[in-house]
Amino acid sequence: MVNTLLVPEIRDLLRKKSYTFLKEFFSEIHEKEAAELIVPLPPSDIWKVLNLFDEHRRAEIFTYLEMDVQVKMISGGLKRHVLDLLTPMSKDDRADLFLHLEKNIADKLLTYLPSRERADVLHLTSYEEGTAGALMTSDFVALNEKDTVAQAIKRIRKIAPGKETVYYTYVLSDEGVLMGFVSLRKLILTPPRKLVSDIMKTDIIYAGVTDDQESATNLINRYDLLAIPVVNSERKMLGIITYDDAIDIMREEQTEDMERLMAISGPVEEKPYLDISIMTHFKKRVVWVIILGFFGILTGMIIQGYQKTLESLIILAFYMPLLNAAGGNTGSQSATVVLRSLALNQLQPQDFLKVLRKEFVVSSLLALCLGLITFLRVHLLTNPSQIAPGFTLLSIAFVIGLALAIQVVWSTLFGAIIPIIATRIRIDPAVFSSPALATIVDMGGVVIYFTMAKLILHI
Amino acid sequence: MVNTLLVPEIRDLLRKKSYTFLKEFFSEIHEKEAAELIVPLPPSDIWKVLNLFDEHRRAEIFTYLEMDVQVKMISGGLKRHVLDLLTPMSKDDRADLFLHLEKNIADKLLTYLPSRERADVLHLTSYEEGTAGALMTSDFVALNEKDTVAQAIKRIRKIAPGKETVYYTYVLSDEGVLMGFVSLRKLILTPPRKLVSDIMKTDIIYAGVTDDQESATNLINRYDLLAIPVVNSERKMLGIITYDDAIDIMREEQTEDMERLMAISGPVEEKPYLDISIMTHFKKRVVWVIILGFFGILTGMIIQGYQKTLESLIILAFYMPLLNAAGGNTGSQSATVVLRSLALNQLQPQDFLKVLRKEFVVSSLLALCLGLITFLRVHLLTNPSQIAPGFTLLSIAFVIGLALAIQVVWSTLFGAIIPIIATRIRIDPAVFSSPALATIVDMGGVVIYFTMAKLILHI
Repeated sequence: MVNTLLVPEIRDLLRKKSYTFLKEFFSEIHEKEAAELIVPLPPSDIWKVLNLFDEHRRAEIFTYLEMDVQVKMISGGLKRHVLDLLTPMSKDDRADLFLHLEKNIADKLLTYLPSRERADVLHLTSYEEGTAGALMTSDFVALNEKDTVAQAIKRIRKIAPGKETVYYTYVLSDEGVLMGFVSLRKLILTPPRKLVSDIMKTDIIYAGVTDDQESATNLINRYDLLAIPVVNSERKMLGIITYDDAIDIMREEQTEDMERLMAISGPVEEKPYLDISIMTHFKKRVVWVIILGFFGILTGMIIQGYQKTLESLIILAFYMPLLNAAGGNTGSQSATVVLRSLALNQLQPQDFLKVLRKEFVVSSLLALCLGLITFLRVHLLTNPSQIAPGFTLLSIAFVIGLALAIQVVWSTLFGAIIPIIATRIRIDPAVFSSPALATIVDMGGVVIYFTMAKLILHI
Repeated sequence: MVNTLLVPEIRDLLRKKSYTFLKEFFSEIHEKEAAELIVPLPPSDIWKVLNLFDEHRRAEIFTYLEMDVQVKMISGGLKRHVLDLLTPMSKDDRADLFLHLEKNIADKLLTYLPSRERADVLHLTSYEEGTAGALMTSDFVALNEKDTVAQAIKRIRKIAPGKETVYYTYVLSDEGVLMGFVSLRKLILTPPRKLVSDIMKTDIIYAGVTDDQESATNLINRYDLLAIPVVNSERKMLGIITYDDAIDIMREEQTEDMERLMAISGPVEEKPYLDISIMTHFKKRVVWVIILGFFGILTGMIIQGYQKTLESLIILAFYMPLLNAAGGNTGSQSATVVLRSLALNQLQPQDFLKVLRKEFVVSSLLALCLGLITFLRVHLLTNPSQIAPGFTLLSIAFVIGLALAIQVVWSTLFGAIIPIIATRIRIDPAVFSSPALATIVDMGGVVIYFTMAKLILHI
């Protein structure tokens, strides 16, 4: 949507100090687009543009800038400008910014902030990353249970500009305990004299402040909520998490899941691909490349143990890539299906045996197909002159087909079981990436393959 | 959250016709939970429970039931009950249900519906699946540009119960053209006599009715919207897509992306893992198992072409699993990174060369690491007596290390390029799953490996 061709023109207008024109230009575009247009400018120019707007729009555009740009601007900005910007910012975004600032800069800024705002930053930054507390904002609308509907609407009108959402309001007791929930929709539909406590919903879906952020965002999705209240162990209300933050978390977790599955380690990068440095790309990938390299060498050592078998029947080498492909493929498939079901809460670790039984049947069918195709391919399409004397093509085809079938079943079961075990012992269920799974089941496959050959062909 | 132990008790209460008690019990729980409690019951019992509630709650609980249960209930329900249910349903959910009904049942029901409702169903079901039109609902609040704020709020109060959201309202011209947007927040903050057209936002983010559903939901996420208006080519407003549908679409696309990447074909199943039949599981997996089986056989045939080389230097067989692991791993990594960036619109197909350059440097670093480790491992840890006479360990270690390095670079570039090419020619960028990629780069790897050996070792 953003026309980046405009960036040089904005620079030009800034140089010419055509502020009125700039102001008019920016007044017509969305905050997100404004942020994308000014982000390539040097911080001093970004400050000039930001100062053209009223405090709310300024704070909103600033929030859409990437975190490292925000940090650069706060660290190098004039104290007056910085404070003007921090006060109207969304409280959750502000707390997040403080967590990214250098400690001495954050500490200095905190002393400048009004005491109430300081307390808010300190409170919101005190929760561990990844918890509902770290994600929530304290900008929610609280009503008193003794309020009438008219008083409630009046109160909302008064405090609306500073709040993250006014569409969901929460009824608190005098001690701040969450008693009920009323939507603005309900409020405008109710006669003004009614008491809020008469129309509020009391079966409230809420998240605990130390809950995992993913479980809080799952509730938002599950119950189609606009926001979810966050409470402490005494059910005192501390904040809300809104649906847009939930969507961001879902995207982030999705990227993380995919990266884990595909053998990319480390935290998810916020920056776009082309902006990430080569060293970061390298570091995120090299870990698994080395680990899987060692696994590959290990598999090679297992093959070396069967050197005699291999040398006397070189045809076995020609079907090792097939064995490998079948294992990696079926293992990845079952792991994906089980992982996804665990993530969507459709499966519990106690369903272990049910999963095992189902995967056994599915993989037996797959094994039958692939084993049969392989048997026929070896039996019918191999030139018998290639076979060392003393072996029949039938028995060799049987060995390869059978080993392949066992490999499919073993890989499928292994792929399905690992995520469940990981969930049970409370580690990340995506403990093995797809390539890691392929490499690991391949080790088992090689043992199965050569053991079959030794047992049946008596090599 | 749902205690499934309650299901037998509900059955019991239904048998005893304790409707008052049941009604009270259900009045205290969320619609989603109510749906989960009644879904195991036979359709006739579900009808009994549903008929305890007022029409809006009944329709909402019904909507939370799984699609096949909804279809079963509509197909077998009493005409009177069915019509009472269909009228208050959300228009997008209702259209979706009609798309799942058998044609003769859907046609019969349509004739019973009031003509306005019938037209709505026919309209909403006329858009191709996967478009914004198929996802939208026509339940939005439309204001007239000549309305005052007081008139607008009055209008919202009147029509609120039937609307998907009242928090975003849209200002239309007499011809139905989308002129502007006003939030309820803005309306309650504005003096009642002001004209809606004076306070509406005119720089509206909207989606075209034939746009891809993913691009519409991306806009909701990008601009943190509660809903996005859907317009036709003349900018006439046809409906809205709300954030909760956008979240569902995101989840679905996420599952689909993951399944594609992990070699699972066919449409994404709505049902939980344990409820999907074994044949469905089998069908979704067998396609790639067979295809990759053929690729595996092909790779074996390539190895067979180098039979002499392999027989004279059996140590080469011991490092093939490493070659395979390295190729599959690095190819999957680069494919994931590029795929994800394309999906998040961080990369365009025209960035082709930039991606290629970056991946070349990253993969060269990875190749250096892995090649060096392998060279040292072969050179220092191989028993020289194992080597056939006429070869030096140094040259063999060099060949294996070099082939591995080239394999890493080739696999990385292949993994990165394929999704970009696919996007350019407008097919699904996840055209190769991770196991498929591993199997395909392995074919190239085998050629590289044995060609190096032949060239350098003169076998």
